Amino acid sequence: MTTGVRRRMGVEERRQQLIGVALELFSRRSPDEVSIDEIASRAGISRPLVYHYFPGKLSLYEAALRRAAEDLASRFVEPHEGPLGSRLRRVMARFFDFVDEHGPGFAALMRGGPAVGSSATNALIDSVRQAAYDQMLSHMGVVGMAPVRLELVVRSWISLVESTALIWLDGRRIPRAELEAQLVQDFAALAAVAAARDEELAALLRDLLGNEPGDGPFTDLATRLISLAAS
Amino acid sequence: MTTGVRRRMGVEERRQQLIGVALELFSRRSPDEVSIDEIASRAGISRPLVYHYFPGKLSLYEAALRRAAEDLASRFVEPHEGPLGSRLRRVMARFFDFVDEHGPGFAALMRGGPAVGSSATNALIDSVRQAAYDQMLSHMGVVGMAPVRLELVVRSWISLVESTALIWLDGRRIPRAELEAQLVQDFAALAAVAAARDEELAALLRDLLGNEPGDGPFTDLATRLISLAAS
Repeated sequence: MTTGVRRRMGVEERRQQLIGVALELFSRRSPDEVSIDEIASRAGISRPLVYHYFPGKLSLYEAALRRAAEDLASRFVEPHEGPLGSRLRRVMARFFDFVDEHGPGFAALMRGGPAVGSSATNALIDSVRQAAYDQMLSHMGVVGMAPVRLELVVRSWISLVESTALIWLDGRRIPRAELEAQLVQDFAALAAVAAARDEELAALLRDLLGNEPGDGPFTDLATRLISLAAS
Repeated sequence: MTTGVRRRMGVEERRQQLIGVALELFSRRSPDEVSIDEIASRAGISRPLVYHYFPGKLSLYEAALRRAAEDLASRFVEPHEGPLGSRLRRVMARFFDFVDEHGPGFAALMRGGPAVGSSATNALIDSVRQAAYDQMLSHMGVVGMAPVRLELVVRSWISLVESTALIWLDGRRIPRAELEAQLVQDFAALAAVAAARDEELAALLRDLLGNEPGDGPFTDLATRLISLAAS
């Protein structure tokens, strides 16, 4: 599997190459089904040399996961321009791109399992959830501690996004574009249900909606829900 | 820790006693923080005798989890009488009772971790989710395979219930009765958002709402959402 002419790589370059190879394999199969031998062969180096850079499969898995986590967290970053509904819609499209690219690995990780649930991997998952949470609050213009019911809405919506993606991966029976749009409306719906019990949250949502275009699906759903919450 | 007079227990009785003791300890702390010594001491028997019944902590943990899973699954069983909103409300109350009783253990299990995520425990979690899913469909009067968008709504709502409970356990900053009521309305809201894209689901919801009392919070929210979905 090696090429005739092999350029000598620096340590960091070789590490990054191995992480890239590992991430590609771990994205397509669960960690149990990927061997160090296969990673070595794909990278064009010997098995002992892989161990020179990473003590074992778990450390390589965690390094690959760290790269994937950074990638995923970055997809929640979106310019603070235009209506919130459209911003969320673009974030959801990038999120489903990620899920699409890393499907089986994403499913294996999120569903847990023997080779997966280390405390390091759990910490990485939490860091992505936290990054998504922080981005959501920042787009809603909330600085500092969020009111407790807003925190609940945002965090539970993020878990809804995760579980919807997992269900989508299991057979892909619903077009992803439909789910991307639905999740944006789900956010408005969950926020409106909670706002019926929390005047501060209701006021925040009314403010946000003032900046939405009147003809967007987000406004269409949300304004009706807000008027419901207020009644 | 043993009493002076100790009645000799049969094998199955002793196993059940150990499972009960283990479940109580695993409910209050994460598996890492519970030792076989402590279980033995609480049960009033020697450590080697515990190993006579269970090969190790993991098998005892799994047995305790199996009992908890059966208990939890049974809480989704509800007579098919009265409005769906009220049935769901009672199911949510029993679910939060369970979460309250088994708080730290529930959180440790659902959040995953080194001692937790075996494939046997994942299969148990899935069996409870499936039992909850089957109960929901049966209450909605759906027999056989559910339409794909209804399946998505029910499964993703179940995950919303789980994540809401986990967020509640983290500080209990919102009264649980409020969350129980909110989750019932969340179900209506998520179903309505999905129904806007699925005429079959919209028809099913309209049917269900025909049996709801006009003054219930479920009807109040849902009828407005259904009219939104239809528009």
